[in-house]
Amino acid sequence: MKAIIGAIIVALLPVVAAGGERPVAPNGIPIMEGYRNWQVIAPSYREDKGHIRVIFGNDIAVKASRNGTLPFPDGTVLAKVAWTAAKHPKFPVATVPDRFVQVEFMVKDAKKYGATGGWGFARFVGDSLTPYGKDPGFVQECFGCHTPVKGNDYVFTGFAPVP
Amino acid sequence: MKAIIGAIIVALLPVVAAGGERPVAPNGIPIMEGYRNWQVIAPSYREDKGHIRVIFGNDIAVKASRNGTLPFPDGTVLAKVAWTAAKHPKFPVATVPDRFVQVEFMVKDAKKYGATGGWGFARFVGDSLTPYGKDPGFVQECFGCHTPVKGNDYVFTGFAPVP
Ligand code: HEC
Ligand code: HEC
Repeated sequence: MKAIIGAIIVALLPVVAAGGERPVAPNGIPIMEGYRNWQVIAPSYREDKGHIRVIFGNDIAVKASRNGTLPFPDGTVLAKVAWTAAKHPKFPVATVPDRFVQVEFMVKDAKKYGATGGWGFARFVGDSLTPYGKDPGFVQECFGCHTPVKGNDYVFTGFAPVP
Repeated sequence: MKAIIGAIIVALLPVVAAGGERPVAPNGIPIMEGYRNWQVIAPSYREDKGHIRVIFGNDIAVKASRNGTLPFPDGTVLAKVAWTAAKHPKFPVATVPDRFVQVEFMVKDAKKYGATGGWGFARFVGDSLTPYGKDPGFVQECFGCHTPVKGNDYVFTGFAPVP
């Protein structure tokens, strides 16, 4: 009886793990777990879009970014989160995050994503984290826009320094 | 001989640990170690000052901020880092950090800092991390400006949410 229950639990595990329907981009990249707790590469601000952002990195990304390692090693993940920018209600000259807009990822795997500079791209939009793009070809838009920084391994954001 | 060398090493350890002259504010608060690796409460932008910022929190701060716990518990440390804001050279509509300006801290100890809402304030300026303020009275400037958010335990910045 115990063995049967054990077998059922084991059989269910992958389903549970996949449960909560982790959204997956059309190229197969799922949303990364825990990115909100990663260290900061840098903040950024887009007046034209009215967005304020943080670029986060996993441990491999932060180490490489801090040391200026190029190209970024396989296993690097960069996450850019955008929020709508609002004036702070108690101090209007400060522009602060309001609502979540989207999160974007760049995942380094030189072989797997060789066609796009070694980077896998993914974007998840809104509170529903709806995957962006109709088919895997959506990455051409990302890759195209990141090509001006090919010399920096397609990464715009440098590590914001402290003494 | 080994024992003597061992004793010398042990005797030197505290000096080495205190070495590098960790700067200390006029009210006795030293610069916190490792704050650049803490989690993010939120980014912010000050167009008037030309600064882009990140507010970091230690583990106690992040937990309280995420859960909306008020007042913040003793042991909370918030760190606000300001960089000069610059246009990204390859993508000028993006405003990104350039040079480090300063780091400021708010350290919660309801008893010790009871005269200023339970918060100890400190600011360290420039690459030299020069402590701000001539004497411990400098905190009145900080506390005064944070008083409009007394209802939020003197903290302006809310946790930037993700779904
Ligand atoms: C219109 C140009 C443009 C397009 C299109 C674009 N990006 Fe970016 N991306 C940028 C710029 C500029 C930055 C740097 C900072 C910023 O935006 O605040 C950036 C930064 C990033 C970062 C942080 C790492 C870095 O390079 O600084 C990630 C991750 C990212 N983009 C993912 C994506 C994904 C995924 C897509 C497509 C679904 C995409 N980008 C499409 C311009 C673009
Ligand atoms: C002129 C007003 C003003 C003064 C003076 C001031 N602050 Fe602040 N402080 C703010 C505002 C507004 C924010 C929120 C976000 C921002 O600046 O980007 C803030 C945020 C902070 C934060 C992050 C936590 C929070 O409340 O959001 C710290 C830490 C901080 N200040 C420390 C200090 C210290 C230390 C001093 C004095 C040496 C000081 N402040 C003086 C206005 C002020």
